[in-house]
Amino acid sequence: MGDTMTDQWRAKASSLFQEVQSSLCAAVEGVDGKGVFSTEPWTRTHEEGGYGGGGITRILRNGEVFEQAGVNFSEVHGVLSAEMSERLTGTREALSFFAVGISVVIHPHSPMIPTTHANYRYLEVGEKAWFGGGADLTPYYLFPEDAVHFHSVLKEGCDEVDPSYYPRFKEECDRYFYIPHRKEGRGIGGIFYDYIGREDASELQRGFALAASLAPRYAQCYLPIVERRRRDTWGEREKQFQLVRRGRYIEFNLLYDRGTLFGLKTGGRIESIFMSFPPLAAWEYDLHVEPGSREEELLDVLRNPRQWV
Amino acid sequence: MGDTMTDQWRAKASSLFQEVQSSLCAAVEGVDGKGVFSTEPWTRTHEEGGYGGGGITRILRNGEVFEQAGVNFSEVHGVLSAEMSERLTGTREALSFFAVGISVVIHPHSPMIPTTHANYRYLEVGEKAWFGGGADLTPYYLFPEDAVHFHSVLKEGCDEVDPSYYPRFKEECDRYFYIPHRKEGRGIGGIFYDYIGREDASELQRGFALAASLAPRYAQCYLPIVERRRRDTWGEREKQFQLVRRGRYIEFNLLYDRGTLFGLKTGGRIESIFMSFPPLAAWEYDLHVEPGSREEELLDVLRNPRQWV
Repeated sequence: MGDTMTDQWRAKASSLFQEVQSSLCAAVEGVDGKGVFSTEPWTRTHEEGGYGGGGITRILRNGEVFEQAGVNFSEVHGVLSAEMSERLTGTREALSFFAVGISVVIHPHSPMIPTTHANYRYLEVGEKAWFGGGADLTPYYLFPEDAVHFHSVLKEGCDEVDPSYYPRFKEECDRYFYIPHRKEGRGIGGIFYDYIGREDASELQRGFALAASLAPRYAQCYLPIVERRRRDTWGEREKQFQLVRRGRYIEFNLLYDRGTLFGLKTGGRIESIFMSFPPLAAWEYDLHVEPGSREEELLDVLRNPRQWV
Repeated sequence: MGDTMTDQWRAKASSLFQEVQSSLCAAVEGVDGKGVFSTEPWTRTHEEGGYGGGGITRILRNGEVFEQAGVNFSEVHGVLSAEMSERLTGTREALSFFAVGISVVIHPHSPMIPTTHANYRYLEVGEKAWFGGGADLTPYYLFPEDAVHFHSVLKEGCDEVDPSYYPRFKEECDRYFYIPHRKEGRGIGGIFYDYIGREDASELQRGFALAASLAPRYAQCYLPIVERRRRDTWGEREKQFQLVRRGRYIEFNLLYDRGTLFGLKTGGRIESIFMSFPPLAAWEYDLHVEPGSREEELLDVLRNPRQWV
């Protein structure tokens, strides 16, 4: 790879993701009203570890609404281990890779406001190239209208490129963000897709179109929900439930998340990888939720994913 | 397996570990002065998942000194997946297994008192049987005399069976409780050993003798340290550092700990597995410790394991 054909996608994806990083951070700051994102550009040479490249890490901490919001842009390249190459392409040999992407995780203070995550990326491994991405919502208390809103905006973004995408990507998201040992989803889903263009390079155009449709819509997916919930009251019980659910989030990320494991196994930038982690999380022995409670309502939907649109 | 030869070890190990569970819980309650262990016996049939068997889960929460102390006894049997069998014996076929063990994790409130973990077990997989175990210390602030005490008692317990054990097991512990992506140890070590008797069944006698020497000594390893530190003062800074270090503990357990992964992959009892997790943990972006601070002193010893005795 690295010929003119793929150079085009590298450049286009890179500038798209950088633009989205700027506009999303501005929108998040606008809603928060107090917190400000720090901006840390970083570069790394091959000598320091598994890969070279750089990125811009942006993080907002201790805002009015947001406890922590991380919006990362990175563009890295290197050589994958045989194990990692096999996982990504089916070929067990050390292959060169290039990856450019944006990754977002937002943890609000209030348990009434959901946590959210999104990631859009362009990858090249050996001779293959593809786009992947998705966005999902992790509420602590369920407000069906919020779930409907989140999914509707994602559907709109998918439909613009191909009406067959949303139903497939929605299902793939429920499958992906599943915690087998807990027998529950990490959240109420969203969309998840990968490998667009890997088997057929003519699909790369659509992969890019999808990223260009979805990534800039992400603020509109999430921020209206924040505005709706920011004045809702809550107490210690709700906070503790949020902290315990955040613990499950961590279990998923460390045990099953491909992005986290990819980062850790390719010698990724540790601080950027762990930016997705909540600032505080709890584990409570043998937690029981009361029948008919709002906590049980959430668990029910995590165990039985719904169609929202 | 399951013949009279191994039946002997099953019974001996089982009663040893149950006795240690009782005496250790009594000793921990004595030191705490307020908290009391709950006692939950449980049984499970094959139908409910990967294995059958039972155990006694004992947990103390919100004590005077201890935020959470879990002391588990369990005795389970079933059939391992081919993947798990290969990892444990090198043979890639579904093998029957039997496991009896005691596992302890204690998380004190005060960051001046270390967290500790111990596990002693007897396993049979297919035609092989062996003993394994160990104990280790995870301080948040370093008191070299505590580390020396902990290691000295372990050395004494090892020496009683074989003077060549301690140096090997100490090194194995440093190797095992290592967090590669953080380039640091989980704590200041202790001992770790496995597979005693697996290659040579005549070694099972020594494996049992070792468990019988070490497991009952564990209270004496740890509790004198608690007595020494329980009146030390601390503030918000020390608490936050403890919470962040607890986050590293979780990273190790979910990414690398064989016991946790064994439990999750064999359909283990979720509540018992996660009892090892601290009730509260933090992740702090780009944490910097001040040069010459007590926090740096700890990190230094986590990066460069020392000989304590």
